[in-house]
Amino acid sequence: MTVKQLSMPELAEACRELGITNVGLWREPVQTYGLEATAKLVRDAGLTVTTLCRGGFFTAIDPAERTKALDDNRRAVDEAATLGTEVLVLVSGGLPAGSKDLHGARERIADALSVLGPYAEQHGVRLAIEPLHPMFASDRCVVSTLTQALDLAERFPAHQVGVTVDTYHIWWDDQAPAQIARAGAGNRIHTFQLADWTTPLPEGVLNGRGQIGDGAIDMREWQGYVEAAGYTGPIEVELFNDELWSRDGREVLTETAQRFVAHTA
Amino acid sequence: MTVKQLSMPELAEACRELGITNVGLWREPVQTYGLEATAKLVRDAGLTVTTLCRGGFFTAIDPAERTKALDDNRRAVDEAATLGTEVLVLVSGGLPAGSKDLHGARERIADALSVLGPYAEQHGVRLAIEPLHPMFASDRCVVSTLTQALDLAERFPAHQVGVTVDTYHIWWDDQAPAQIARAGAGNRIHTFQLADWTTPLPEGVLNGRGQIGDGAIDMREWQGYVEAAGYTGPIEVELFNDELWSRDGREVLTETAQRFVAHTA
Repeated sequence: MTVKQLSMPELAEACRELGITNVGLWREPVQTYGLEATAKLVRDAGLTVTTLCRGGFFTAIDPAERTKALDDNRRAVDEAATLGTEVLVLVSGGLPAGSKDLHGARERIADALSVLGPYAEQHGVRLAIEPLHPMFASDRCVVSTLTQALDLAERFPAHQVGVTVDTYHIWWDDQAPAQIARAGAGNRIHTFQLADWTTPLPEGVLNGRGQIGDGAIDMREWQGYVEAAGYTGPIEVELFNDELWSRDGREVLTETAQRFVAHTA
Repeated sequence: MTVKQLSMPELAEACRELGITNVGLWREPVQTYGLEATAKLVRDAGLTVTTLCRGGFFTAIDPAERTKALDDNRRAVDEAATLGTEVLVLVSGGLPAGSKDLHGARERIADALSVLGPYAEQHGVRLAIEPLHPMFASDRCVVSTLTQALDLAERFPAHQVGVTVDTYHIWWDDQAPAQIARAGAGNRIHTFQLADWTTPLPEGVLNGRGQIGDGAIDMREWQGYVEAAGYTGPIEVELFNDELWSRDGREVLTETAQRFVAHTA
């Protein structure tokens, strides 16, 4: 998504040129290019798919909507397996229209995970609950902290459900370093993502994820926490940013790779 | 600030008409109308000033800037005393330009409070650290949760330093109800403010505080927490909202009073 202006073949080619061997994918561009075609493309290009984004949106109250969400999440698991990635990132969903019940919404996420966790396991996929910044609590994800994400994940085996550690969402939280240690001790850090915190936030706040090094977050500090917690997996850079999307995709990918080298250990 | 389009005399008159006897004031409009003139106006109108907003911005590193901030905060204490309010709300400050050190910034807040707390006590004013929503952590306030605010406040006597409980900033936090109990047990709930959470957030996010009843927050639930914690003081409604500011101030005040009655116990 960082360079969504690139087509799948352009992305594969740009990765090859830059020596990037891992890529995190989102479902929509995969579906646009075709699931099997994408699987073949990344395989032929020697790219490892680190994660698939995103499942989730488990908070509906209406039974028909809940069934539909579970069906869609089973498809997401299938897609992850086809792409050869072991990790499906979950954005769990916000409050249903008119509801003010955060606790109830979080419990409905747990209900969905009790169905989806075993299904994912059967397909060799781990689910990674992503706590989203509290500014998304009403409209996107009622799981706002690593603490909440782990409270949910720990109801299930670690090889079914873990968490996504994303600097953008947790950097403000002085409890997050201890929660990363908790996640690592339980083998529940299923992916680690970077974006920087820049202000002013844009209208709607979704597309404000800043380029590495442009903002308030010390990337090495957070890398240190996840590595001290035993995480040895890939580090993803995930930027949603209208300014970056308006530029040449290869140039943005090159810049991002340079920033990654400059700001991580 | 909810009806900043009204002049001080218009505000006093509108409060009289609506039977509102308490008002929270901000420093800028007070200074515009004049401190002594405002004190006389509210006194003559029989209005009690519940709080003065705001002191704070303690996070500068530069010694000259720190001295300037402390001087300004002493003036804010003086103004609060002149207006007859016992509570000065503190917005503690964000990260200095180029800094990524949240911990250091929080420690500089504690340093400032060690000077300002005794000064406030001498003037019969209590300081109320306001945790601001984590989306303000870099540019406005590195104190993002009630937990963090109480960790700071509890270094000082409760009659010097407590907290502001504001639904808008903490509604997403499942640890906040227990922290309200902690604050109440220590006599540190110095004010309780309401605003609703509405989306999409506007650019810059500052002026997105929603009218009571328009958003995701159950006001009675939070009122229940503060009252169960022993709080018996006034409840303030504080809205920053460009749409509300564009309307007739008396109409907005009337609507806000109606919403308050409809959504609180």
